[in-house]
Amino acid sequence: MATSRKRALEQIDIARQGRDLGQLSLPTSAAKPPPKLRAGSSRRAIDARCAALGLNDASLAALRHGPADASIETYAEMVEQCIGAVQVPVGVIGPLRVRGLFAQGDYFVPLATSESALIASYDRGAAILTAAGGAAALLLNEGVQRSPGFRFASLEEAGRFVAWAMTHFDDFAAAARATTRFGELVDMRVTVDGRFVYLACEFRTGDAAGQNMATFATEAICAHIRAESPVRPEAMFLEANLSGDKKACAQSFLSVRGRKVTAEALLPRTLVERALRTTPERMHEYWTMSAVGGVLSGCLGIQGHFANGLAAIALACGQDVACVAESAVGTTRMEVDASGGLAVCVTLPNLMFGTVGGGTSLPSADACLGILGLRGTGKARAFCEVAAALLLAGEISIVGALCADEFARAHRTRTRGRRGNDSRRTKDGSS
Amino acid sequence: MATSRKRALEQIDIARQGRDLGQLSLPTSAAKPPPKLRAGSSRRAIDARCAALGLNDASLAALRHGPADASIETYAEMVEQCIGAVQVPVGVIGPLRVRGLFAQGDYFVPLATSESALIASYDRGAAILTAAGGAAALLLNEGVQRSPGFRFASLEEAGRFVAWAMTHFDDFAAAARATTRFGELVDMRVTVDGRFVYLACEFRTGDAAGQNMATFATEAICAHIRAESPVRPEAMFLEANLSGDKKACAQSFLSVRGRKVTAEALLPRTLVERALRTTPERMHEYWTMSAVGGVLSGCLGIQGHFANGLAAIALACGQDVACVAESAVGTTRMEVDASGGLAVCVTLPNLMFGTVGGGTSLPSADACLGILGLRGTGKARAFCEVAAALLLAGEISIVGALCADEFARAHRTRTRGRRGNDSRRTKDGSS
Amino acid sequence: MATSRKRALEQIDIARQGRDLGQLSLPTSAAKPPPKLRAGSSRRAIDARCAALGLNDASLAALRHGPADASIETYAEMVEQCIGAVQVPVGVIGPLRVRGLFAQGDYFVPLATSESALIASYDRGAAILTAAGGAAALLLNEGVQRSPGFRFASLEEAGRFVAWAMTHFDDFAAAARATTRFGELVDMRVTVDGRFVYLACEFRTGDAAGQNMATFATEAICAHIRAESPVRPEAMFLEANLSGDKKACAQSFLSVRGRKVTAEALLPRTLVERALRTTPERMHEYWTMSAVGGVLSGCLGIQGHFANGLAAIALACGQDVACVAESAVGTTRMEVDASGGLAVCVTLPNLMFGTVGGGTSLPSADACLGILGLRGTGKARAFCEVAAALLLAGEISIVGALCADEFARAHRTRTRGRRGNDSRRTKDGSS
Amino acid sequence: MATSRKRALEQIDIARQGRDLGQLSLPTSAAKPPPKLRAGSSRRAIDARCAALGLNDASLAALRHGPADASIETYAEMVEQCIGAVQVPVGVIGPLRVRGLFAQGDYFVPLATSESALIASYDRGAAILTAAGGAAALLLNEGVQRSPGFRFASLEEAGRFVAWAMTHFDDFAAAARATTRFGELVDMRVTVDGRFVYLACEFRTGDAAGQNMATFATEAICAHIRAESPVRPEAMFLEANLSGDKKACAQSFLSVRGRKVTAEALLPRTLVERALRTTPERMHEYWTMSAVGGVLSGCLGIQGHFANGLAAIALACGQDVACVAESAVGTTRMEVDASGGLAVCVTLPNLMFGTVGGGTSLPSADACLGILGLRGTGKARAFCEVAAALLLAGEISIVGALCADEFARAHRTRTRGRRGNDSRRTKDGSS
Repeated sequence: MATSRKRALEQIDIARQGRDLGQLSLPTSAAKPPPKLRAGSSRRAIDARCAALGLNDASLAALRHGPADASIETYAEMVEQCIGAVQVPVGVIGPLRVRGLFAQGDYFVPLATSESALIASYDRGAAILTAAGGAAALLLNEGVQRSPGFRFASLEEAGRFVAWAMTHFDDFAAAARATTRFGELVDMRVTVDGRFVYLACEFRTGDAAGQNMATFATEAICAHIRAESPVRPEAMFLEANLSGDKKACAQSFLSVRGRKVTAEALLPRTLVERALRTTPERMHEYWTMSAVGGVLSGCLGIQGHFANGLAAIALACGQDVACVAESAVGTTRMEVDASGGLAVCVTLPNLMFGTVGGGTSLPSADACLGILGLRGTGKARAFCEVAAALLLAGEISIVGALCADEFARAHRTRTRGRRGNDSRRTKDGSS
Repeated sequence: MATSRKRALEQIDIARQGRDLGQLSLPTSAAKPPPKLRAGSSRRAIDARCAALGLNDASLAALRHGPADASIETYAEMVEQCIGAVQVPVGVIGPLRVRGLFAQGDYFVPLATSESALIASYDRGAAILTAAGGAAALLLNEGVQRSPGFRFASLEEAGRFVAWAMTHFDDFAAAARATTRFGELVDMRVTVDGRFVYLACEFRTGDAAGQNMATFATEAICAHIRAESPVRPEAMFLEANLSGDKKACAQSFLSVRGRKVTAEALLPRTLVERALRTTPERMHEYWTMSAVGGVLSGCLGIQGHFANGLAAIALACGQDVACVAESAVGTTRMEVDASGGLAVCVTLPNLMFGTVGGGTSLPSADACLGILGLRGTGKARAFCEVAAALLLAGEISIVGALCADEFARAHRTRTRGRRGNDSRRTKDGSS
Repeated sequence: MATSRKRALEQIDIARQGRDLGQLSLPTSAAKPPPKLRAGSSRRAIDARCAALGLNDASLAALRHGPADASIETYAEMVEQCIGAVQVPVGVIGPLRVRGLFAQGDYFVPLATSESALIASYDRGAAILTAAGGAAALLLNEGVQRSPGFRFASLEEAGRFVAWAMTHFDDFAAAARATTRFGELVDMRVTVDGRFVYLACEFRTGDAAGQNMATFATEAICAHIRAESPVRPEAMFLEANLSGDKKACAQSFLSVRGRKVTAEALLPRTLVERALRTTPERMHEYWTMSAVGGVLSGCLGIQGHFANGLAAIALACGQDVACVAESAVGTTRMEVDASGGLAVCVTLPNLMFGTVGGGTSLPSADACLGILGLRGTGKARAFCEVAAALLLAGEISIVGALCADEFARAHRTRTRGRRGNDSRRTKDGSS
Repeated sequence: MATSRKRALEQIDIARQGRDLGQLSLPTSAAKPPPKLRAGSSRRAIDARCAALGLNDASLAALRHGPADASIETYAEMVEQCIGAVQVPVGVIGPLRVRGLFAQGDYFVPLATSESALIASYDRGAAILTAAGGAAALLLNEGVQRSPGFRFASLEEAGRFVAWAMTHFDDFAAAARATTRFGELVDMRVTVDGRFVYLACEFRTGDAAGQNMATFATEAICAHIRAESPVRPEAMFLEANLSGDKKACAQSFLSVRGRKVTAEALLPRTLVERALRTTPERMHEYWTMSAVGGVLSGCLGIQGHFANGLAAIALACGQDVACVAESAVGTTRMEVDASGGLAVCVTLPNLMFGTVGGGTSLPSADACLGILGLRGTGKARAFCEVAAALLLAGEISIVGALCADEFARAHRTRTRGRRGNDSRRTKDGSS
């Protein structure tokens, strides 16, 4: 997180704003802060909060969608301090043909985003995949972790605890089972670092993404430990930051968090030439340079822009978009095949997606899962295979654009197109 | 990304579904895929797409917000293949007192999420920070990168190119300047790997997040290179995956991508005891165990749940949520201070946030930036300082909950509360 | 691997040496290279090589240790193109008291190095540990990997192969067993990345470090696959770079490579104050700042200078010093204990050490293992526990020196001391 | 660093040794430890230590090289508690033709190792490179870091300190200059993490590896800060673990530590076919699979076995072998060239090598640097270019062996060959 001296000096100038940074003093205030907003999920409470914030009619309209908005009280039961809802445009790409273990068919995929060109790019990739006969996809692994941490008085006590815990897995599993119908403790790994012990409790979570399910089950495991362990920890915490929850980490990348899926396709040479205006050889050259670029920048995995497609399908389908932090890792590969075509594949080890629970009950999420035909129970594995195929489409399209020297153009056309003739805005109009 | 043999065998059983995996064959289909959706941003085109997808009235209502929804055509100009918009509930926390270089005052912060308990947790942290006099915050660095890649015929030619490029920075800056009023080429680093050369063009981008601005300026730099370089590359690509765009990477973490901000506060012991029902000592113990846990799981940086707050403020304020992948990295620290209080700080090196461009023009985003008082030009630095203070609030709250053994309870109460008396649902009701 | 523009410009100046880098051209030569040295392990062949290299008497003496050197032909059977042996000074620290599962007693530990101050520093740490009652140590895990890689025609074929391989583990283990008395295939993990499949074959290797043992056993497994697999790979390689052999990698750090050991001790406050001239509090402060420093620099694990002690004991005891690359990772922790003392621990997940095979048969290595009392069969686990205790000693000593502001002084005294009064040399005399 | 439950259970069985791990208790002893060895560098002191350790004649001979060994007192002035020296066999490969900025010519390269097959493998690679006209090599960057750390009372004070430090670089450079003739402070980067501030002082160190030089100069900088800083740090440490000293870290990999060199060659197709018994295409296939394998195992960089050659040349030439931990990182690339040959390159960003200071004064190291023709002042840059060419040779040879299915065979032949007819030993004879 270092800053070079040259840049630090420039930044000091920016920060200065006429002040002497040698006397830098951030403002303090004895003023009483304004009152907190009132809680409550009734329409009246909502209205009171909006009034306290001084929202004008335009803002109210933007967040409330008309005085008759029937959803707002539902939203207010879902999240605290609710004042309405934000809207994000949603477009649909497809058909995207998927040949998976669980997803089999032609899918229309809703993507929510405010970024222009994104949907067009994924749609192009989907059309190419479909023209090539579809993306093969395999669900490879499943598991969601919670990692309680324990500190003992000594290494010896830590050792005794581990010996006990490892030989009482069935009791732990039973404690977990009492909290959930769908979750199941399927594995438990142990990490010893001196007198610190971390357990990685790993669960299958049915069709839910499953973080809360894993939390409640681990709480029961911790209660069981507190009651039964022959060695008493000096300190224990339900989650000690070894689970990879909400962050890219090597451990999740190297095993699984959520679901792990791989997808691939073989694109005939003529299809690459016609649809992408480049060649398999140039796309392979690009892959090589970008794979090395990824390594040289210290990435976890090597890929192009998984995060774009992931965030867009997550947002459309009521997934927890914070999980983009952990899910947008993996690998992309492109090779020239013996046939002269392009063999492409992606692998996503950490897809935290579900088709029940969480935001999937939002009305718009329910509609979007309906467009996919993947609402509710029994659909999460297929949903993850479709997501992998979607990201494969996105990688094909962006690499094609970079190889055909159309990358900037695609963004410019879209960005400028929507802004009309305001040349000043078009010059810098987008981020 | 390995799978243990035990898990692989279980997964094989799941995949089997009555089939013999030794004969595994993914379905192919000669069937013609269904037709693509028609393009177009008129209301008629939108309606035609919805009809083609067979959306029923409930889905239409969920995505269109009534027949009178005036925004839909605006959305359709923003994204391709638009069928409407998804909604995500938004709540407001605050006041959050910030003592920054650029952000100074008491802020109400809108957060959009479908996860219950999240807003309550950040609100609690904000109240604690405000009670402690606010969060100090410093913007430390700024810069957005694009990294074109070049392959030369030999290492010698690569060397000659580098010697030329490094001594012609001003020409490159001029080429960039012609494409943008706000963007500025402020640095250029070079990475040589044999005959591969990567340039890291680094820009200041005003109040925009700035990816497109950087793309267009780099396109101009590449055109300049193509026209003027004394050495001709065998291949060149506008972006060769060294920029860290849309992914967590060591390079961005170690320098900056977007804006880098640090925020800190000193929480008096009595405040910790009263508001968090724990002690500074136990919070420091937790920090130690979780910092080691982060290291042991191979994280980039060490922190708790930056992604939650980041995704929620990004979504509320029209930021590109895909950037959560790159922005949700950094560090959290907690120490017992000499006064017996808790010194806490966060550092976020890669905040890809802006107050102009992109999704900030969405009506609901505009309303949310308005609640913050950070709409438009001249506000991006303050916005990033507020975001850092927000994440500091979130870290305080989650660590407090884990230390007071209230983490699972907080989620359960919220989750169950909203589900009423359906005991079956409450058992597994959330993800 | 980027270079800033400022530094690149300076480096260009250095490279220039009067040349125009725009015309950079590395020398080519049509000259015939000098002849290769003759092979052979006889004394005559050795002498011929030395003559061909034009070694003078001083060089011969340095590499041959006198005309009567009886070892040289032994060396020449060990390595190719032998011309003699290099010498590295060896010192002995101790007694180092170890309270391990396998190592129990007071050890004198030989360390070979050319770095002054290193041995004194480890000796100080050992004395402190011994005074504190010794280092507790636990061997936690064992396993050495080889990772053959396979490319199939398609994802389906890859899937079929995995289904076969995972269900035929016993046959693989039998194939491995035929090549080795001591090695045992104990696990096999699988990594699927599209049509690429990597197997991680994990072995117990008795008292050897075991790389060759793992290689030969994996060769047999590959032969078995070639003969028996129902799916024919398009390409297969005995090792596809997933084993972590000879490199620091997250995968080995996160599980085990070689042996994993943790060691800890509790240092009474008075001992810290007397022997290290600092306090537990200041050492804990240092640990916090250095742990965060390690995270901020993107280290794998967090520790001070494991590599110093590891390289020195490896070199003394005939271990493969190239393994320092993979073994010198892990964690160090220091906390103030409830008693006011300092709780310290280290964890080393990747110790590639053995007491049989490889360089352990070198005469000087045999002597050094003898000093430890850890020669030959049945001693490798104890050797690894002693190594962990040694590194714990080294961490205590270096952190103590940094806290007492004696770090530079320790190096200077040693370095200058040995150089006498040559003030010019003392100014820059060491590296 | 997790252990799966299955493996943990097996390990518990191993640890048990008849004991009940539920009662695990590591041995304690009230026995007085044996006395420490006496210090001193006289021959008498050395003899006394050897006697105290009870060394028998064979051990004495192995470590002392005869009663007339003249070097032993020299060694005892170099390292503490000296009892003699260990020997490691050294072989010579070459000629290795290098076409560098600084190294130009045909080099014979001494390699010290106890691993059979290693020297033969590098020699094969060198012969191929030389036959192909030599390895082009470019020194790209130089710099050695020390990173003092400072904790201030608040973020504001940290900010004030940074503003002061960044604007007083020249004073810092002057303070550094007073300690060294050859070292030069060339850059200073700053990392702010709340009230923690880390400075990365970067030095050019002439022909020395330079760690001690950097340490002494940084000590002077810290003294200057202590005397002159307008803001007083609460705590300061000469090195706060941000320098990457003795460990693989992203920061060093992403910039430079020591010297950064890249080397490449183009191998004609016929040469690959004849000398390596494989094809450029298969070597490229291997590279792809191994590069992805490196990524999938979470390596820093992607390469095969840099550590082997690095450790061997370091040990021969008196370098600090502990630096293998930090130097053995980088990248290897292999592509099929337009000509049908194989383009190969390596990049080493962290070569901590020097030709003066440290162990270079050891008699055998001096002899080995003499064989290279790279003794003393003015030779360090050339030495690093030769090292890069050496590692390129090693990568070519090992990949060739893996592609020709000769990898295991090469090790077996060598290992068994030297062991004679003892079939039991040959079965498992090596590590």
